[in-house]
Amino acid sequence: MSDIEIARAATLNHIKDVAAKIDIPSDAILEFGPYKGKVSYDYLKSIEGRKDGKLVLVTAITPTPAGEGKTTTTVGLGDGLNRIGKKTAICLREPSVGPCFGVKGGAAGGGYAQVVPMEDINLHFTGDFHAITSAHNLLSALIDNHIHWGNELNFDLRRIAWRRVMDMNDRALRSITVGQGGPGNGFVREDGFDITVASEVMAIFCLARDLQDLEDKLGKIVVGYTREKQPITAKQLKAHGPMSVLLRDALMPNIVQTLEHNPAFIHGGPFANIAHGCNSVMATKSALKLGDYVVTEAGFGADLGAEKFFDIKCRKAGLKPNAAVVVATIRALKMHGGVAKDNLGEENVEAVRKGCANLGRHVRNVKMFGVPAVVGINRFSKDTDAEMEAVKEYCRELGVEAIVCSHWADGSAGTEELAHKVVELVEAGVDQYAPLYSDDVPLWDKMRTIAMQLYGADDIIADKKVRERFRELQEQGYGHFPICVAKTQYSFSTDPNLKGAPTGHVVPIREVRVSAGAEFLVVICGEIMTMPGLPRVPSANSIHLDENGWIEGLF
Amino acid sequence: MSDIEIARAATLNHIKDVAAKIDIPSDAILEFGPYKGKVSYDYLKSIEGRKDGKLVLVTAITPTPAGEGKTTTTVGLGDGLNRIGKKTAICLREPSVGPCFGVKGGAAGGGYAQVVPMEDINLHFTGDFHAITSAHNLLSALIDNHIHWGNELNFDLRRIAWRRVMDMNDRALRSITVGQGGPGNGFVREDGFDITVASEVMAIFCLARDLQDLEDKLGKIVVGYTREKQPITAKQLKAHGPMSVLLRDALMPNIVQTLEHNPAFIHGGPFANIAHGCNSVMATKSALKLGDYVVTEAGFGADLGAEKFFDIKCRKAGLKPNAAVVVATIRALKMHGGVAKDNLGEENVEAVRKGCANLGRHVRNVKMFGVPAVVGINRFSKDTDAEMEAVKEYCRELGVEAIVCSHWADGSAGTEELAHKVVELVEAGVDQYAPLYSDDVPLWDKMRTIAMQLYGADDIIADKKVRERFRELQEQGYGHFPICVAKTQYSFSTDPNLKGAPTGHVVPIREVRVSAGAEFLVVICGEIMTMPGLPRVPSANSIHLDENGWIEGLF
Repeated sequence: MSDIEIARAATLNHIKDVAAKIDIPSDAILEFGPYKGKVSYDYLKSIEGRKDGKLVLVTAITPTPAGEGKTTTTVGLGDGLNRIGKKTAICLREPSVGPCFGVKGGAAGGGYAQVVPMEDINLHFTGDFHAITSAHNLLSALIDNHIHWGNELNFDLRRIAWRRVMDMNDRALRSITVGQGGPGNGFVREDGFDITVASEVMAIFCLARDLQDLEDKLGKIVVGYTREKQPITAKQLKAHGPMSVLLRDALMPNIVQTLEHNPAFIHGGPFANIAHGCNSVMATKSALKLGDYVVTEAGFGADLGAEKFFDIKCRKAGLKPNAAVVVATIRALKMHGGVAKDNLGEENVEAVRKGCANLGRHVRNVKMFGVPAVVGINRFSKDTDAEMEAVKEYCRELGVEAIVCSHWADGSAGTEELAHKVVELVEAGVDQYAPLYSDDVPLWDKMRTIAMQLYGADDIIADKKVRERFRELQEQGYGHFPICVAKTQYSFSTDPNLKGAPTGHVVPIREVRVSAGAEFLVVICGEIMTMPGLPRVPSANSIHLDENGWIEGLF
Repeated sequence: MSDIEIARAATLNHIKDVAAKIDIPSDAILEFGPYKGKVSYDYLKSIEGRKDGKLVLVTAITPTPAGEGKTTTTVGLGDGLNRIGKKTAICLREPSVGPCFGVKGGAAGGGYAQVVPMEDINLHFTGDFHAITSAHNLLSALIDNHIHWGNELNFDLRRIAWRRVMDMNDRALRSITVGQGGPGNGFVREDGFDITVASEVMAIFCLARDLQDLEDKLGKIVVGYTREKQPITAKQLKAHGPMSVLLRDALMPNIVQTLEHNPAFIHGGPFANIAHGCNSVMATKSALKLGDYVVTEAGFGADLGAEKFFDIKCRKAGLKPNAAVVVATIRALKMHGGVAKDNLGEENVEAVRKGCANLGRHVRNVKMFGVPAVVGINRFSKDTDAEMEAVKEYCRELGVEAIVCSHWADGSAGTEELAHKVVELVEAGVDQYAPLYSDDVPLWDKMRTIAMQLYGADDIIADKKVRERFRELQEQGYGHFPICVAKTQYSFSTDPNLKGAPTGHVVPIREVRVSAGAEFLVVICGEIMTMPGLPRVPSANSIHLDENGWIEGLF
């Protein structure tokens, strides 16, 4: 059965019953239909003093373009922990609607490890992304309106740093000219649209601790510069107030359920390249007050996702992760072992063994943050026993356990062993999470530390202009910001074709951007696409409603 | 007390209890928090066979820029009818969020005649406008994507008729150039954004009878032309399917409550100039199955709003309105009587008497559609008895009753008399609604009929190009479409300064646009703004959340 068929065959529980599993009272849930809800601020406030549960991160090896099943494993592990009697909540990112019309497929897990109602989650859900889009574009409108009526703040029209956003794959909007058509329409200038998940508002939304913190951070956004190159902020435009008003309801965490009726928070979804790629701090912190265990994930492989989770999200939110699962697939390991895409379906134990170098480095990296790890092999039907045994053997030598999981096919029955192992790791109490670098390390050195210690690089390089920009930002008071690396997710290096665990490479830095509201420095290594396009034959072509109003062709 | 203070002081009932007043069962309501809901398709299907209730339209005289209180009177009359024992539902348009950040004030009634929760209704509400924005812009993306990948349908890039939309007041987006930045970003062409309420998708949404009808109409949208000037439709791009998927949930009517806990459907909100300015057919038809009485409104004065309600909405949806209320204010009548804006606060019985000519023509016009009318004087504290008596006297001579209403101050107690009169009119059974012209009248003559019979014009004029376009559209098979006039709402004529009931003027037609999906012809007389701007000091400047998370400065 396909994901959508499995999801539709499921009987869903009322969201208030799901919430009751983690003792959320009925009146604390704002329903969005019977199967989606938001948890009220009043209730969240009332549980602030509680002790936190245990936090488990699900991350992955360097992925193939198909992905290695982080979301699926997060859902599966959450169900597995519930199965063995641990009161567990899951925290995931909200999917973006734009890409749904490009390539077929959703982002709500798969098989028997899904969150439901999957159509809703993948489309408008509870409207959070629309609220973020509105807040972002209100700021854009206020910038141009300010300039139109006299430009009192003295914006340099060539140095406006705030683009517009839309939750759509639309390449025609990447680079545009606005303000045409005469004086009544404002000043002509170059502009462009990013996809909503790439908005700094999205990053801020996911790092905000509460509404007040959200407003403060929004106010700090640098939207442009004067002719004297002085930054102009959203606060100077008085935009942070109305933006917060637009985001007020959205910031309440969303709750839905897994196919096994366990609670899942799905909230916020920042890009994993120019932003930190984790669900909201609001959701994770709330879940920790409610569950004995919380399982969450971070975008891309551990070099990007886990690093940002540890160095940005945990650092800023004061989270202390207790264990991590590194997801691997036999297929991806073979790829790292040098097998061509067309041959990944054939048994190749030698290639698996060779590809394990990639897994090894990710495990070592996670441990470098003081977080104990276990490897979860996300099993596919074509994987052979010999291949899986090779991974287990490699991991034994590495001093980490590797456990085969079959949640896609079996739901929580397929992650029981992994769940037990996670509990064992957590209960051992050996975690001693610390970020990779401290706040006071200079920006350049922070980036160098990440590249050398995690990517296996010899050094980082950048041309004079970029190096000067580092210095400038250091001097302007951004020196304490953590780094948010934007690079390919397909290699430890910046070359997507360099598989395995490369060493001796250098990381070239192309550009640096400051996200003054989200409070991190985006270091861009290579081409980063912030507005995707649609393919020649977009999935939209086959998406429609059937005669009963069911969605066809989306998944 | 201000509107927002009154709204906040109110205790709201749970939306399921409100729905129960018109016998909607609890499980037919999809909650959006405790005070907003959508009525499920399954339930609506189950009541399709029921007899319709009585339909009452609230319209108005030619308004001042402040508006004459149509929405407030609609809410007040709905409460009044409930007060005298008639099971009544109200149908209103959804407000647009964009303008909220321009000029202070919402669009959910006022005083003790409001719909609540007003902040939610004025901001994201249940996400319908966001869904419409997404569906519209998906079509835009599919157009440019199609061209990018080879332009098989042979779009003439100079003749793309589909712009983009955003629910924001943003003048910088009125006229833009897209596709810049090289071949990877598509082809460079001129484009622009309208505000979401101006989207043809919004008009279609409001005229669709069900999901299937929605998809059919979306498919008929003409998005551009080939070099041979042949129209290209959304269906040819296979866009109607995914657009319907995005609109699936939105098309369920929203239900909220008045301050007196009576049910109000608020659904859809098309522009009243380039579209027909009425709430959705889905909502009105549903309400008619549920209430003994349904009170609804139409945008602007009766020359635009009521005309389109009768000639477009009722014609297409098969509705038979039973009575109409023409709302007048002493203030507006004085304006029509020649009093300057600054002196409208002073008693001036003579001016009121003179201004009644405007009221008289609107009443006559409504009756021309076969619908019995009553005049509702929306009372303001400064209005004097002598002024109100003058209106009553004028109306007596005209053969129509004028009733003073004080719902703003008194809620339903202030509309009891009006409610009784409306019931009397309806129960007399004299209504014999018919549209002004039949489908088979040629397009040019339809427009001429509206201008001469309703506006008091001598004729319509247009230059050769426009007249040829009329002929062309007549020949291309659009001849049966009704006319949707886009002209100033401040005069029967096309000159906003021509008050009262002008005669002898001519109506110049500047442009004709076909809304092939919504199935009407937009006839544009004068400047029509489809993307508003923000003022020098936008209300956004003072909008923020207070320490309790309450919205300040929005209303």
